[in-house]
Amino acid sequence: MGALRQPERSGASAALCALVPVWILLSSVLGLKAEDDGIEELATEKEAEESHRQDSVNLLTFILLLTLTILTIWLFKHRRVRFLHETGLAMIYGLLVGVILRYGIPATSYHNKTPPSCSLKEGPASTLLLNVSGKFFEYTLKGEINFREIHNVEQNDMLRKVTFDPEVFFNILLPPIIFHAGYSLKKRHFFRNLGTIITYAFLGTAISCFVIGNLMYGVVKLMQVVGQLADKFYYTDCLFFGAIISATDPVTVLAIFNELLVDGDLYALLFGESVMNDAVAIVLSSSIVAYQPSGANTHMFDAAAFFKSVGVFLGIFSGSFVMGAATGVVTALVTKFTKLHCFPLLETALFFLMSWSTFLLAEACGFTGVVAVLFCGITQAHYTYYNLSEESTKRTKQLFEVLHFLAENFIFSYMGLALFTFQNHIFSPIFIIGAFIAIFIGRALNIYPLSFLLNLGRRHKIKGNFQHMMMFAGLRGAMAFALAIRDTATYARQMMFTTTLLIVFFTVWVFGGGTTPMLSWLHISVGVDPDQDLEPCGYSFQVLQGDGPHAEGRSKTKQESAWLFRLWYTFDHNYLKPILTHSGPPLTSTLPSCCGPLASCLTSPQAHENHEQLRDPDSDLIRNDTDLTFTFGDTAITANGASSSSGADAGGGLGWSANGKRKGSTSEEALEHELDSREQELLSRGTRLVFPIEDHV
Amino acid sequence: MGALRQPERSGASAALCALVPVWILLSSVLGLKAEDDGIEELATEKEAEESHRQDSVNLLTFILLLTLTILTIWLFKHRRVRFLHETGLAMIYGLLVGVILRYGIPATSYHNKTPPSCSLKEGPASTLLLNVSGKFFEYTLKGEINFREIHNVEQNDMLRKVTFDPEVFFNILLPPIIFHAGYSLKKRHFFRNLGTIITYAFLGTAISCFVIGNLMYGVVKLMQVVGQLADKFYYTDCLFFGAIISATDPVTVLAIFNELLVDGDLYALLFGESVMNDAVAIVLSSSIVAYQPSGANTHMFDAAAFFKSVGVFLGIFSGSFVMGAATGVVTALVTKFTKLHCFPLLETALFFLMSWSTFLLAEACGFTGVVAVLFCGITQAHYTYYNLSEESTKRTKQLFEVLHFLAENFIFSYMGLALFTFQNHIFSPIFIIGAFIAIFIGRALNIYPLSFLLNLGRRHKIKGNFQHMMMFAGLRGAMAFALAIRDTATYARQMMFTTTLLIVFFTVWVFGGGTTPMLSWLHISVGVDPDQDLEPCGYSFQVLQGDGPHAEGRSKTKQESAWLFRLWYTFDHNYLKPILTHSGPPLTSTLPSCCGPLASCLTSPQAHENHEQLRDPDSDLIRNDTDLTFTFGDTAITANGASSSSGADAGGGLGWSANGKRKGSTSEEALEHELDSREQELLSRGTRLVFPIEDHV
Repeated sequence: MGALRQPERSGASAALCALVPVWILLSSVLGLKAEDDGIEELATEKEAEESHRQDSVNLLTFILLLTLTILTIWLFKHRRVRFLHETGLAMIYGLLVGVILRYGIPATSYHNKTPPSCSLKEGPASTLLLNVSGKFFEYTLKGEINFREIHNVEQNDMLRKVTFDPEVFFNILLPPIIFHAGYSLKKRHFFRNLGTIITYAFLGTAISCFVIGNLMYGVVKLMQVVGQLADKFYYTDCLFFGAIISATDPVTVLAIFNELLVDGDLYALLFGESVMNDAVAIVLSSSIVAYQPSGANTHMFDAAAFFKSVGVFLGIFSGSFVMGAATGVVTALVTKFTKLHCFPLLETALFFLMSWSTFLLAEACGFTGVVAVLFCGITQAHYTYYNLSEESTKRTKQLFEVLHFLAENFIFSYMGLALFTFQNHIFSPIFIIGAFIAIFIGRALNIYPLSFLLNLGRRHKIKGNFQHMMMFAGLRGAMAFALAIRDTATYARQMMFTTTLLIVFFTVWVFGGGTTPMLSWLHISVGVDPDQDLEPCGYSFQVLQGDGPHAEGRSKTKQESAWLFRLWYTFDHNYLKPILTHSGPPLTSTLPSCCGPLASCLTSPQAHENHEQLRDPDSDLIRNDTDLTFTFGDTAITANGASSSSGADAGGGLGWSANGKRKGSTSEEALEHELDSREQELLSRGTRLVFPIEDHV
Repeated sequence: MGALRQPERSGASAALCALVPVWILLSSVLGLKAEDDGIEELATEKEAEESHRQDSVNLLTFILLLTLTILTIWLFKHRRVRFLHETGLAMIYGLLVGVILRYGIPATSYHNKTPPSCSLKEGPASTLLLNVSGKFFEYTLKGEINFREIHNVEQNDMLRKVTFDPEVFFNILLPPIIFHAGYSLKKRHFFRNLGTIITYAFLGTAISCFVIGNLMYGVVKLMQVVGQLADKFYYTDCLFFGAIISATDPVTVLAIFNELLVDGDLYALLFGESVMNDAVAIVLSSSIVAYQPSGANTHMFDAAAFFKSVGVFLGIFSGSFVMGAATGVVTALVTKFTKLHCFPLLETALFFLMSWSTFLLAEACGFTGVVAVLFCGITQAHYTYYNLSEESTKRTKQLFEVLHFLAENFIFSYMGLALFTFQNHIFSPIFIIGAFIAIFIGRALNIYPLSFLLNLGRRHKIKGNFQHMMMFAGLRGAMAFALAIRDTATYARQMMFTTTLLIVFFTVWVFGGGTTPMLSWLHISVGVDPDQDLEPCGYSFQVLQGDGPHAEGRSKTKQESAWLFRLWYTFDHNYLKPILTHSGPPLTSTLPSCCGPLASCLTSPQAHENHEQLRDPDSDLIRNDTDLTFTFGDTAITANGASSSSGADAGGGLGWSANGKRKGSTSEEALEHELDSREQELLSRGTRLVFPIEDHV
C-alpha cells in the first residue's frame, strides 16, 4: 500500500525469471533458505516442515483445479457447449478456489509469535545483517508493510502464499503464450492482410489508448468532483490504463471461429491484430511509464518528454524486433548448416534454448523480452521451421502448444483466484462503469474509422458485418491482466488492476459466450473451407496498392509502401529464404554471377531440387492470371490487366528459373504457394484446439 | 559454514518447487521483492536494474553454454565420437565457464556499501521487521553467514548468483529425469529380469551402502590419526556417504549400449538397476538421516534407532510407491472412461498435471516425491499409455524426453560449474582416495556375490563378462550429485560433496569413455537385434523359479515368491489391465459371473475386440513351446517339460478365451506379447538418443 512508484519493476526481475531451465529455481519463492544457512535447528525445522506440508497441499489443490478444468473442458467440448470457453471456465474455478481460500479456511498461522523488530536510522537496504549474540544472519528485503498490517503478517500468510510474484506472469507465463502465437501465426491469410493488421495494431492501439486514456481522465475528474477519489490519479496513469486495456485477446472468439470455420480473412484480421497489439501495448505502456517531464510539473504535457516517450517506443519496439528476428535467423542458419535434423531431440532442445535466449538477450539489452519472443516466433516459423526434421516440426509445435495451453489456463484461473485473494482491491463503481464505456468507445474509434480508411485501399473490402464482429471481439485477457498486475503499488494502479480484472471477466464471459449468436445475427458465413476462399494473387497487399477506384488521393504513399513491401518480399524470396532455409530458388540463380562461389556454398542441394521442380511446366505454381500480374525485382508493379515492363514473363514464366537470373517474376505467387504448401501442417488457423466439424449454426 | 545440521531440508522446500506451472515463480529466487513493496525508489531501482542486467547476461551465458553443448554433441554424434558422452561434454563446458566466472571476471559488485547491521538478543526468526523512522520493512531470513564472510557478501555475489538452491536439483531437475526413466522403462527385457533387478537394487544398494560406509569410517579414523580431520565426522555421516554414492547412473554406458545394440538383457539389468537403486538410495539416505539414537550416545549404534530407521525406510518406500502407483491408476481410469483421446492436447496436459501431482501428493504426505514419480512413470507406461490417443503417446513421450534431456544436461554442466563456484569445497586427498577405493570395493561386493546367488536360480545365467561389465558400469551421476548438494552445511557434508563431484567426473569421463574398448575386451556381443534374442517364455522369472539344478536348497522360498509374482501377473492381466485400459481380456470373461453387470460396465468395447482377436487360431500368441509351459491362476507352475495340471491347455489354448472363464492359461505369453506389441513404439531401449546403426566394433 506504499504510495511509491516502481516504474521499472519490469527491468528489475525479468531475466531472473528466465533462468536456465525454465522450471528451475522456484524453490526460494516462498522463503527458502540459501545454501549454507545454519539456522537454529529445532524451531525452524518444525516450522519449515509444517510450512512445506501446507504448501504442498495448497499447490496440490491448484493442480487438481487445473485438472478439473481440463476435464470440464473436455465435457464441454464433448457436449458441444459453446457458451463458455475453457478460459472462462478456468476463471470460474479460480473464483471458487479464491472464495474457499478467503473465507473457507481458518487462518492457520504456523508461527504464532509476532516477528521481532529492530530499528535503523538509514533507509532500507536490500540486505540486512542481524547479529544474534555473535552469530550473523543475512536477511533480504521483502518489502514495506503498512504499520497497521504488522500484526497481520502471519494472518495474511495463507493468502500471500497463493499470490505469485507479478513478474512471474510477465516473464514466465506470457513468453510461451506469445511465442506460440508468433510460431503459429504463419498463415497465408495473415500475410495477405499484413498491411491491414499492422494498421490496426499500431494506429488502432494508439487510438484506443489515447481515447480510453482521455475518457478515463474525464472520469477521474468526475470522481474528484463527487469526492470518490481517495488518492492521486494522474493523466499519465489514465494513459497507462488506456495502454494496458488496449491489448485484446480474443482466444474465446477465435476458438469458436476455428470450430465453425468462419471466413479465413476475418480470422486472420482478428488473430493478427490481437497478437500484434499485445506487443504494441507492452511497449506503449513502457513508454508512458518512461514519460517523465522534467521539473516540478510532472504528469502534465511536456513536448520534450513526449518525444522522449515516442523515441522510447520506437527504440524498444525496433530493438525487440531486431533481437527476435536475429535469434530466429541464427537458429535458421544453425539448423540449415548442421545436419542436426538427424537428431530430432537435439534439434528440439536447440530450438527451445535459442528461442528462450531471445528473451534473455532482449532483457539484457534493455528491450522487452516478450516482444522479442513474438518476432522470434514469427521468424522461426518463417525460416527455421523449414529446416527442421519432420519430427522436430511436430515436437516443437506440440511442446509450445502444451506450454501455451497450461500457461494460458493458469493465468485465467489465477485471475479468478486474484479477485478474492489479492488484498489491495479498490472497487470504484464510477471508474469501473467509466472504463466499460471507455473501452467500448475506444474499440469503436479504432475499428470503424480505420476500417473505412483501409477499405479505401482494399480490393477486398472489410465488410460491415466483419467490422461489427471485430468490434464485438475486443475481449481482454492475459496480456491486460499481466500488465495490470505488474505494478499495483499505488492507489491508481490498484484501482486499474481491479477494473481490468472485472473487464476481463465480463468480456470473456459475455462477449466470449455471445460469439455464436453474434455470428448468426451478423450473417457471417461459417463452414468456409480455409483453402477454398483463396482468390488469385490480386487479393494480396490490398492496403498497399492503389488499384481501387477510391484510392487516387493516397496512391502515392501507398505505392511507396507497396514498393517497400515488394522489395522486402523479393529480397526474402530471392535471398533470405535461400540463405536461411533449404527452400526457395538456388542462390546461384538469384545472386549476381560475381558472387558465384559464395552462392554455391550457401545453396543447399535441396534448393537445386526446388529449382528443377519449378521448371516443371506442369507445376501449379504457374498461373495464367492476366487480371493482375505481380512482377518483382527491378520492374514496376502493374494492376488490373495493364501489362508490366516485364510483360514477356506474364504468361507464366518464372523469371529466375528461366535463365538463372533474377529478371522479375511472379515470385509472389511462388511465395504464396510456398506458404501454402508446408503450412497446412502447421497448427491450422490459430492457437486453439481443433474441434470436430459439426453441422453449422 | 555453520556446524548445524539440517536433516529435514528436503521436507522444507520440496513442494515449493512444484508450484503449479513448473516454470513459474522463479523470479524471487535471486532476491525479488514482493508485490506491494514501496522501497526507496531511486537507489533500489537503479540497483535492481543493474542487477537485472547482470543476471540476464549470466543466464544468457548459461543458455549459450547449453546450446554449445548441444551443437558439440551433434558434432560428436555426427563424427561418431564415442569416447566422450554428452554428459561428460556438458561437464567440461561447465568447468570452463566455472573457471571464467571464478577467475576471469572481476568482482563487479553493484552495491558498494557493506550492509547495515542490527542486533537482537533472541534467535533468528524467519521474518524480521525493520523500523526506519516510522516505516516498517519486512525482511526474510536468507541464512547464517560466517563472521569472516561478512565483508565478502558483495564480493561473493557473482559466484552466489550461479549457485542455485540445492533443492532445485532434487525437486525440479530430478523429477523429469526419473519420471522419464520410469516411463521409458517398460521393456520386455526389464520385466523378464524383474527379480534380478530388484535384488540388485535393494540388496545390492544396501550392501554397497554399508560396505562403503564402513570403509569410509576406517578412512576417517585414519585421517583422525594422521591429523587430517578438522572437524567432526560421525559414523552416520559415513553411512550417509555410502548411501548417496551408491546411486549409479550409467547414462553414458547405456547410450553406447544403445548405439552398438548390446545384448538386451545386459541393457535391461543395468538400466533397471540404475533406475531402481536411485529410489533406494534416496530413501536409504533419508533413513540414515532419521537414525537418531536417543540419549547422549548419538551417532553410535542403537538397536531401537536402527529399527526405527528400517521402519522409516520401509514406510517411505512403500508410501511413495503407493502414491505413485495410485496416481497412475487414477490417470489410467480417467483416460479410459472419458473420451479425452479425441483432444490430444487436453490429454497431454492432463497426463502432465496428474504426473506432477504425484510429486506434490507424496511430499504433502511426507513421502519422497522423486520416488513416487518413478513408480508413477512405470504405472503410466503400463496402463495409461494404452489409453492415450496415438498423438498423445508421442506427445507425452517427447515432452518428457525433452525435459529429461535439458534437465540432465543442465545438471551435468552445473556439476562442472560447481567445482569452481561452490565456495565451501574441502579437498581431502586421503578421503578422496579412500572413497575411490571404497566405491570400487562396494560395487564389487554388490555385483559378484549377488550375481553368484542369482545365477543359482537363473536358467539364463548372468555370464562373467556381463558381471564385469556391470561392475565397470557403476558410474555415478545426477542422483549422487543431487543428494550430495542437498545438504552442505557441515564439514563432513562439504567433504562428501567435493568427493562426490570428483567421483562423478572421474567415472563419467574414464568409465564412460572406456565403455567401447571394455565391450570388445570383454567380448560382449554387439549388434544384437533387440527383438531376436527373445527366447520363448521359459526365460521369464528366472530368479523366482526353482528350475535350475543348483536351486534345490532354496526352492521353497523361490516357489513362494514365484507364486506371489504369478498371482500378481494373473491379477494384472485378468483384472487390472481390463479395468484400467482397453486391452486385455474382457472383464466379463475373467470376473466371476456374479459380477456380470459390473464387469460389462467396466469392460470397454475394445476389450471384446481383443477377445475376438485372441480367439483367432492364427494369432501368433499361441506358441507350441512344450519345453516349458506356464500356467497361471489356480494351477501350479511346472517347468522343463513336465506337464501341468492344466496340461490340456498347453497345446496353445488360452484358457479364458475358450469358455469365457479363467481356468489357467498361457496368460504370461499373452502378457509378454502384449508388452511387445505396443512397446516397439515406446522409446526403444532407454533414454538416450537413437544413433544410426554403423559397423560394430
